[in-house]
Amino acid sequence: MTTHRTQVAIIGSGPAGLMLGHLLRAEGVDCVVLERQTRAHVESRIRAGVLETVTTDIMHRLGLDARMNAEGLVEDGFNLADGDMMVRIDIKALTGRNVIVYGQTELTRDLIKAAAERDLSIVFEAADLALHDIDSDHPSVTYVSGGVAHTLHCDFIAGCDGFHGPSRRAIPAELAREYTHEYPFGWLGILADVPPCHDELIYANGPRGFALASMRSPTRSRYYIQVPQGEKLADWSEDRLWDELEGRFNGISRHGVTRGPALEMSIAPLRSYVFETMRYGRLFLAGDAAHIVPPTGAKGLNLAASDVTYLADALIGHYRQRGEGGLLDYQRRALARIWKAERFSWSLTRLMHSFPEQRPFERRMQIAELDYLAGSHAMQTAIAENYVGLPL
Amino acid sequence: MTTHRTQVAIIGSGPAGLMLGHLLRAEGVDCVVLERQTRAHVESRIRAGVLETVTTDIMHRLGLDARMNAEGLVEDGFNLADGDMMVRIDIKALTGRNVIVYGQTELTRDLIKAAAERDLSIVFEAADLALHDIDSDHPSVTYVSGGVAHTLHCDFIAGCDGFHGPSRRAIPAELAREYTHEYPFGWLGILADVPPCHDELIYANGPRGFALASMRSPTRSRYYIQVPQGEKLADWSEDRLWDELEGRFNGISRHGVTRGPALEMSIAPLRSYVFETMRYGRLFLAGDAAHIVPPTGAKGLNLAASDVTYLADALIGHYRQRGEGGLLDYQRRALARIWKAERFSWSLTRLMHSFPEQRPFERRMQIAELDYLAGSHAMQTAIAENYVGLPL
Repeated sequence: MTTHRTQVAIIGSGPAGLMLGHLLRAEGVDCVVLERQTRAHVESRIRAGVLETVTTDIMHRLGLDARMNAEGLVEDGFNLADGDMMVRIDIKALTGRNVIVYGQTELTRDLIKAAAERDLSIVFEAADLALHDIDSDHPSVTYVSGGVAHTLHCDFIAGCDGFHGPSRRAIPAELAREYTHEYPFGWLGILADVPPCHDELIYANGPRGFALASMRSPTRSRYYIQVPQGEKLADWSEDRLWDELEGRFNGISRHGVTRGPALEMSIAPLRSYVFETMRYGRLFLAGDAAHIVPPTGAKGLNLAASDVTYLADALIGHYRQRGEGGLLDYQRRALARIWKAERFSWSLTRLMHSFPEQRPFERRMQIAELDYLAGSHAMQTAIAENYVGLPL
Repeated sequence: MTTHRTQVAIIGSGPAGLMLGHLLRAEGVDCVVLERQTRAHVESRIRAGVLETVTTDIMHRLGLDARMNAEGLVEDGFNLADGDMMVRIDIKALTGRNVIVYGQTELTRDLIKAAAERDLSIVFEAADLALHDIDSDHPSVTYVSGGVAHTLHCDFIAGCDGFHGPSRRAIPAELAREYTHEYPFGWLGILADVPPCHDELIYANGPRGFALASMRSPTRSRYYIQVPQGEKLADWSEDRLWDELEGRFNGISRHGVTRGPALEMSIAPLRSYVFETMRYGRLFLAGDAAHIVPPTGAKGLNLAASDVTYLADALIGHYRQRGEGGLLDYQRRALARIWKAERFSWSLTRLMHSFPEQRPFERRMQIAELDYLAGSHAMQTAIAENYVGLPL
């Protein structure tokens, strides 16, 4: 048994844990990031790719923005389509802000690469992670690394370990409330090194349901289509998926769909989830550990960024002896933004998907909403301000 | 058998039929209004009370606005509440427009009173109304009045006879499509000569569901609460209803609820309904004959006003030999506005009511939407522009 001590133990080396770790180190707070997976696994996970200002601001603040600035695509608008109708939401004109297309995978690599030079220690392949004494003033995390049992003593634990991690489960169920909503479909995604069919994202609905034309770079495309719950990846050849995408996007996109071999193909379920409370004793949850949004509107990564912005400020305030207000207020501040993002993701998901139980009236409501949106500067602004991210 | 001839036979003397009749007469088009009920019945029906510009504009244009101008209440805002949270939508500041509170009952009386002096004939108690030859160029309407069978020959028939009238049923089912949505609750309403609890409408949601504080004048209040589908009026004494209203509005309204004897108490179901087509041969539908909205947001009367504005323009264009474009375009123009109003009414209904199948996540979505609305000028503007009425 080896014992260590730090100020903040961070569980999970996804964007939430890595951004939090760097934010704390930049202000001289000691911390250690514990990650169950290998570095290679973490650096190759395919995830989100649309960054709000809340996320890019962290990278600017950390001075880790060089590659993001060089390679990220500045997006001034996105599109909502239904059949032949396509409404462009000019987020730059409507809000004065934009979003950056830059893969979460790239962001993660940048943060991991910078860890060594900034004295942020990350322990990969930390097995059997467990949280202890979180309701006391001497919490700790135990784990096994290289066959050796470790105990990390700390002042605080940040649970940034995603939906399946141990942090949330360390909070007694009777002290928390779970809010869940399941959607009766998933997204079948494909990543390929082909030019995107359009310079901006297209969220498309129609009689065959949802499809998304997205990208990670000028030469890498990311597409999704709605598939029924329980659909098997084995039922989809690449050709079948490209056929479907051509049918959906060739008529409305600027360049048309270019086919290419899949770098990745997968099916992800859609879920809305909020766990209240985000604090228990010395444990604070952030990101997917506390809440899940459906990917529609790309809020997941950006919510993790706002959580850790609040949490870093609160912890730094504590160590600088500016008082405990930030820690006491963390949950309220985070949840106010989370619930609004949950609402936006839920409402955009409902607007843009086919629901098995949907009746003709409800289908017409989707079309009427897009038709209204097409003519309403106010409603376009409301969509745009949510898309670029509500203020912190 | 007595036969008559007119240019436009209007079925129904609700606001749609009466406004259309006056608009046509003002331009020299002959028309006759046929009404199944007695005048006393028509003049005493309790209905809506919030008039958009589209409706007040008709009364101004007809010069029948004297009493509405004198007695109508100019409303510059309304309120959306949930529990203790109340968001004021300042429609005047957000849109430059307002709405007028003036009972549909009063509007109907003004229109009937002016009919004689403007040579608009209204036949009350026209029994056994039937439409004939509407797909030919010589349609007619038969009815029985004073024990005598009448045939009214005409060029066009305007079906303004509401949801239960014969006009819509005269259109072959295979040529039309019905869109319906039922809500699992109704509104229990009370009308009383007591001062309103607030100077503006309050739409309130909460754990006990929906309630509305409304008014018809500074001395006449109109309240509603949500009741389960199938609820019996006999289960509600006036005292029980006042108790409930006090519980809902005393904490958030300016003056508190004043109790008084009911002038009227009733339960109305909530329904969304659109009938497409609005034209068949020489028959045109307008108002509730073609579409129903739930009362949330007060769109029903105002949609009837936009329908007859389009239809009057089309018919006048025809008789002035300006061409048939207006008649050909009637359905498209009317439906574009109808579907958007259906969407608004449906979405406000969903935001502000308890649904029996509602789960905690969906309840939190209602609260999150109001919380977002409270801080978003754009979303407030979107709500306001729908409330005052989208442009014709």
